[in-house]
Amino acid sequence: MAQKVTPRSQDFSRWYTDVVQYAELADYSPVRGSMVIRPYGYALWEHMQRALDDMFRATGHQNAYFPLFIPLSFIEKEAEHVEGFSPELAIVTHGGGKKLEDPLVVRPTSETIINAMFAKWIKSYRDLPLLINQWANVVRWEMRTRLFLRTTEFLWQEGHTAHETEQEARDEARLMLDVYAKFAEEWAATPVVKGIKTDAEKFAGAVESYSIEAMMGDLKALQAGTSHYLGQNFAKAFDTQFLDRNNELQYPYQTSWGVSTRLVGMTVLVHGDDQGLILPPRLAPHQVVVVPIISSEETADQVMDAGWSVTSALHDAGIRVTMDDRDGVRPGFKFNEWEMKGVPLRVEVGPRDLAEGNVTLARRDLGREGKQSVALEQVATVATDLLEEIQQALFDRAATFMADNTFYPATYGELVEGIESGGGFFYAGWCGSAACEAKVKDDTQATIRCLPFDQPDDPGPCIVCEQPGAHQAVFAKAY
Amino acid sequence: MAQKVTPRSQDFSRWYTDVVQYAELADYSPVRGSMVIRPYGYALWEHMQRALDDMFRATGHQNAYFPLFIPLSFIEKEAEHVEGFSPELAIVTHGGGKKLEDPLVVRPTSETIINAMFAKWIKSYRDLPLLINQWANVVRWEMRTRLFLRTTEFLWQEGHTAHETEQEARDEARLMLDVYAKFAEEWAATPVVKGIKTDAEKFAGAVESYSIEAMMGDLKALQAGTSHYLGQNFAKAFDTQFLDRNNELQYPYQTSWGVSTRLVGMTVLVHGDDQGLILPPRLAPHQVVVVPIISSEETADQVMDAGWSVTSALHDAGIRVTMDDRDGVRPGFKFNEWEMKGVPLRVEVGPRDLAEGNVTLARRDLGREGKQSVALEQVATVATDLLEEIQQALFDRAATFMADNTFYPATYGELVEGIESGGGFFYAGWCGSAACEAKVKDDTQATIRCLPFDQPDDPGPCIVCEQPGAHQAVFAKAY
Repeated sequence: MAQKVTPRSQDFSRWYTDVVQYAELADYSPVRGSMVIRPYGYALWEHMQRALDDMFRATGHQNAYFPLFIPLSFIEKEAEHVEGFSPELAIVTHGGGKKLEDPLVVRPTSETIINAMFAKWIKSYRDLPLLINQWANVVRWEMRTRLFLRTTEFLWQEGHTAHETEQEARDEARLMLDVYAKFAEEWAATPVVKGIKTDAEKFAGAVESYSIEAMMGDLKALQAGTSHYLGQNFAKAFDTQFLDRNNELQYPYQTSWGVSTRLVGMTVLVHGDDQGLILPPRLAPHQVVVVPIISSEETADQVMDAGWSVTSALHDAGIRVTMDDRDGVRPGFKFNEWEMKGVPLRVEVGPRDLAEGNVTLARRDLGREGKQSVALEQVATVATDLLEEIQQALFDRAATFMADNTFYPATYGELVEGIESGGGFFYAGWCGSAACEAKVKDDTQATIRCLPFDQPDDPGPCIVCEQPGAHQAVFAKAY
Repeated sequence: MAQKVTPRSQDFSRWYTDVVQYAELADYSPVRGSMVIRPYGYALWEHMQRALDDMFRATGHQNAYFPLFIPLSFIEKEAEHVEGFSPELAIVTHGGGKKLEDPLVVRPTSETIINAMFAKWIKSYRDLPLLINQWANVVRWEMRTRLFLRTTEFLWQEGHTAHETEQEARDEARLMLDVYAKFAEEWAATPVVKGIKTDAEKFAGAVESYSIEAMMGDLKALQAGTSHYLGQNFAKAFDTQFLDRNNELQYPYQTSWGVSTRLVGMTVLVHGDDQGLILPPRLAPHQVVVVPIISSEETADQVMDAGWSVTSALHDAGIRVTMDDRDGVRPGFKFNEWEMKGVPLRVEVGPRDLAEGNVTLARRDLGREGKQSVALEQVATVATDLLEEIQQALFDRAATFMADNTFYPATYGELVEGIESGGGFFYAGWCGSAACEAKVKDDTQATIRCLPFDQPDDPGPCIVCEQPGAHQAVFAKAY
């Protein structure tokens, strides 16, 4: 894969699909709207899963598995839910050679089927809180798809919890948003804005939706994770009730929250450059690649031996390392390929360096200035430190980028011009009316990404109608 | 869950579903044929996945993910494949509110969609072998379902590989069957018979199918894993071709292989007893449960402290341990509950033992004779050893059971009577004709489970027609 990607500056959208394909993260499939996640992309997803799963367990959640098929009648039980999801449903009408009496929906999300089970399992306050997570595939029929970012089928996790009190459920929804933010920042090296969704953007069936919003390399926003406070909406629809501490029947308060393979796309969009992917070390399938430089037959054995010994030292230091020992492939070609795949650190093992007891380390996130000569016996220590440095450097770079492209327009004209002239995140007062929100969308395609939790004392006047603002909102175009 | 399960001797089938439900492994769902895997059952599956996944990686395979939906036309490309799977398909006819021009099948297995991608990726012998595995849900419409053993949707892994030569592919199919046998024996403590499926029982589209067959507690056989040598059947159907070392176009030789959540059911059926589940330590979500015995207020703190310190020592020794610190639940109730859940080892921490510096260890697989008093400071060491002993004891017990119920009938009458009077595995000569195979099935419902790889020099005459035998076959009724 020494193909050159389309430069970001030339066509950001093509650059993205080039990188996803050339780095072998994913490929188009012959099935409309569905993609194939290739081994390298799947390995990245597996590292994401592990980090998230550990955090879910640490906060008391357990994994379980619920059916792929949901009776259509279930989806219809919660009024907003069916309205929101109807246009996106895939429907199974035939099974085992016969037409089904009740058509089945391929799950777009599992609130309904899970509530049908919760209604069976939750009898008493002693059964609460019930804290469940599911890793699964879901299907939402999409007209315009994009690898990882929007596909008809995608992989995700969905948390579903039930609680005795409203406060507990609200706290849970916020806690899980914090988990997502921590993942984005500490693993994916991506700063995020945390906030509340407006009614126009909230989950169909939720009382309140929270999201983390990240800024991509083209200044658009990506909703990277959502957490919903569902109130008693689904509990009432499914008659999920429990005997409380006073022996009275109550509906539990619920949450749901999810992140998906979209996070893979986010990682590409935030860190990648014209050489391809740049992966944060904590998520990289290979954190270090060792490339032997064979320049003559005489030194070949020595170089290969040194390469294996460096690989082994790095492996023993707990680093995910691979040695590219392919015959008949030139080092320059290998460099390009591993740069395309975004491996954070490369170790070049060549005869000239070796003569002085050294190897060369090259950071993926820097250019020539990221190269350094390191004594053989120091490689593992230096590499360990460098991987931490790279993780931090990627976060810092993304944070600076977000700060540099965050604006506080004073007038509607400034907002519109800002969005149209380049984009970014625009913080401005909003009166809370759907009309003002819709006007911005009509005029600019930008939406309110969220109302940040972190609000100023005075949000200022509404950027649209100039009435007193109820909140400060973040406006941006979004994926 | 202190409910009593139906005794095995009274109704084995009800005993099984009782155990699965009371141990909270799974539950029926409102969706026909689909079950819910509850957290305890899912944790068991996750331990199975980890063990298998490690072995797949160690043998060079990589995980990837392919679409859930497959165009119906793909399934139809391989003649035997479509014939075998047609009656079991779930069909999506509507998506996004519209009728689809080409209906989509919910994957029953992924040979076809994967070959469509292989055809794109495999260009040269340098791209081979291609060794892919997928963890996924699949759907096969079933009329009669049983929790874990036969459900419309189930979770599994499916390996799909492509090779330059027939021999390599045949070796791969055998290698992966060996991996399954190793998993069954060393993790699930279940001895298996490895062999070849007859044409009547082989996978739709395979040249040859191999299976591992295990004996359940009711003497029926369970096909616990299968591996298929596919030859060039799917490669030809999808025109998957590569340039070989002589620069000539060739079809690769392929394999596929899979195990499923059925393995959870197997573990119940092989080891369980009238108190519930018995889990092999290597797969148990909790290997040890610590139960504090509070008999008076004065000693309560001392007992709880000792309980936590034992739990911590076991945890530090790398044991998966949980302490049942629930208030207001009597120890006897806890004992029953953890016995139902099959936790291999229980540590009872009570004031009388503690006064002498001891705790009591109780093995799940033994009765009263499995109890022993152990000095506090020895608990971790003794528990570690005991878990290994239990793992081996479960295997030995299952192996003895299988040996005791394996028969070598000399006449057809003996075969029929043996199957009808109790069951077991019946080794006998078989001429190789479909007619003789079908006669046994008609007369007894037993089928040829496999033709064991391990064949005697002389298989003896066919047990049905008395013509010279071509193979020794294993006849048994099966799940």
